Amino acid sequence: MMDYDICSSETTHKKLLDRCMLPSIDNSLRAQAQRKIDTKTKPLGALGHLETLSVNMCCIQHTLSPRLNRKAMFVFAADHGIAVEGVSAFPQEVTRQMVLNFLKGGAAINVLSRHGELDLFVIDIGIKGPPIDDPVLIQKRITDGTNNFACEPAMTSAQVELAITTGADLFFEQYNSKKIDIIGLGEMGIANTTAASAIISTITGIPVAQCTGRGTGVDDAGLQHKIKVLEKALLFHKPDPSDACDILCKVGGLEIAGIVGAVLAAASKRCAVVLDGLICTAAGLIAYTINPAIADYLIAGHKSVEIGHMAALKHMGLIPVLDLGMRLGEGTGAALTINLVDIACHIMNEMASFEDAGVSEKNKE
Amino acid sequence: MMDYDICSSETTHKKLLDRCMLPSIDNSLRAQAQRKIDTKTKPLGALGHLETLSVNMCCIQHTLSPRLNRKAMFVFAADHGIAVEGVSAFPQEVTRQMVLNFLKGGAAINVLSRHGELDLFVIDIGIKGPPIDDPVLIQKRITDGTNNFACEPAMTSAQVELAITTGADLFFEQYNSKKIDIIGLGEMGIANTTAASAIISTITGIPVAQCTGRGTGVDDAGLQHKIKVLEKALLFHKPDPSDACDILCKVGGLEIAGIVGAVLAAASKRCAVVLDGLICTAAGLIAYTINPAIADYLIAGHKSVEIGHMAALKHMGLIPVLDLGMRLGEGTGAALTINLVDIACHIMNEMASFEDAGVSEKNKE
Repeated sequence: MMDYDICSSETTHKKLLDRCMLPSIDNSLRAQAQRKIDTKTKPLGALGHLETLSVNMCCIQHTLSPRLNRKAMFVFAADHGIAVEGVSAFPQEVTRQMVLNFLKGGAAINVLSRHGELDLFVIDIGIKGPPIDDPVLIQKRITDGTNNFACEPAMTSAQVELAITTGADLFFEQYNSKKIDIIGLGEMGIANTTAASAIISTITGIPVAQCTGRGTGVDDAGLQHKIKVLEKALLFHKPDPSDACDILCKVGGLEIAGIVGAVLAAASKRCAVVLDGLICTAAGLIAYTINPAIADYLIAGHKSVEIGHMAALKHMGLIPVLDLGMRLGEGTGAALTINLVDIACHIMNEMASFEDAGVSEKNKE
Repeated sequence: MMDYDICSSETTHKKLLDRCMLPSIDNSLRAQAQRKIDTKTKPLGALGHLETLSVNMCCIQHTLSPRLNRKAMFVFAADHGIAVEGVSAFPQEVTRQMVLNFLKGGAAINVLSRHGELDLFVIDIGIKGPPIDDPVLIQKRITDGTNNFACEPAMTSAQVELAITTGADLFFEQYNSKKIDIIGLGEMGIANTTAASAIISTITGIPVAQCTGRGTGVDDAGLQHKIKVLEKALLFHKPDPSDACDILCKVGGLEIAGIVGAVLAAASKRCAVVLDGLICTAAGLIAYTINPAIADYLIAGHKSVEIGHMAALKHMGLIPVLDLGMRLGEGTGAALTINLVDIACHIMNEMASFEDAGVSEKNKE
């Protein structure tokens, strides 16, 4: 039996939280931002969710003139031991193949990153098989994929700690070379919806059957099998819902832990964090378990078709921006929403007020 | 009593349809486009609504490599006689004031057009008061606003015909100077949600109370008053639901007729048309009444908060792309969606197929 208590110890948590201190949100600034958007030349609230994004960006950046000068997308890739249980519609080698596709620029996240002018970083944090030799790939392999959590813990606590630190360091490194104003998070890892559902079920307390979907497209029998594998695994491990590290050790993934680190690091620098679908949001939920104040820095990119996704978002009080019937991952939903956040910032900065434009205000009722 | 039958005569309809012949959609190309998107490196259907947009753009442009080289936004502005009935939360002079705001670049549609790289055209097709002297404004005034349709027809048939032709000519003129691949339609006109609800109720057969909303923000009493004004007007005019011109004469608006012309003209050139909210969609519905084949060229930009909007979209079988709780008009919902259509085209052209990328396909079930 491996020891996976170290990471959940107070010392380690404290170390992480010290490195990733979250600046608090100034509520008087929120009120000012709301007044600013309310005086723009439009009926009150007429830009709907865009206005919420405008105000939230003011709070995150602590300014009434939020800007996205540099936008980045971090895609973490890793393999999952649980794949041998036949929980995915695609073979495990697809993780590696898709990463090669990312490196050649042919995947959906490449198209979206180019179109949205996002700096795209692809990280190998634990892909099965020999290291991929490619100058574009950021090589941060911790191990050759996780263990099969159907019968043993996915990782050691040391691996979890290293994966979180790796994610945080990667963000800080890029941020220090040039300030980043918003990041999208993405992932690639065959069978990682299984790990994500395990995390979401553990933290929200929702039964596995109500937060497990078809992932890349298993059929009805495949879905029932996936649910059974998950139920057995959670019964076996009994992860502690309040202990982020315990959950990651027992049923997590290397890319999920990497994302947790990047999320905490980004927020500590007042960089907005746009979550993607099920897997990223499970990572967001882990970060939320470590420090609930993280929610102020999170933007839910979209509503995934995966049923567990909304449960995870609700737990953090987040409302998804887009609902396009997507379930691809890679960061695609986040990439689309970063563009809307950019527009929300432009609205705050560039729209005239009623006074500026000499437009009459609403009739008194 | 004015004669407003001329425009609804077969001759006039034929003249318009001859100028705006819709090329038919090739269903074998649709099947090819679907196969092309299905072989891209992603689980089947995982990009959701974006995939639908990709396939529809192939059909509209009649190619497997759709592109948006030039994107344009046409915003038609006009005043409405019905405003004197107190149906809007804002005074009538706001139409003119907001057009001045458009010309100075301070409105939401300016911000969105700049960000989305849309060529923005603002047209005065009937603003009340003296002509606005501004080189950016396209001056096509037909009359000084419509009549109050609570007690008389809004326009003569000659005015309706001229407004439709003006909209069509404006599109053709811009298109001939440089090909346009997609247009968004927008509008400005205090009280124009009242005209739009009258049109939608007439064509869909849905009672006024079920397709009338708060517009720029009338209160409960204001909403009840607006509904009563509309019920009385429709009872008085009894517009013929199958006769586009009769509807426009009796309860329409100059900007709405202008949009009808632009929509028909654009589709005749295989230029995709993105509708905005309630008013634009009412215009789309008029175009649909003239020629139902127009629906193949229409993209519903977003789901407006206005309750009549979904009824109009459903009537044409359109599903809105975005749902951001917006109700501003000006073309703002359309502008946001043009960006998504652009991305959908890039996906079709730039994403690798499983074969190109050497990625394993789904496991056989």
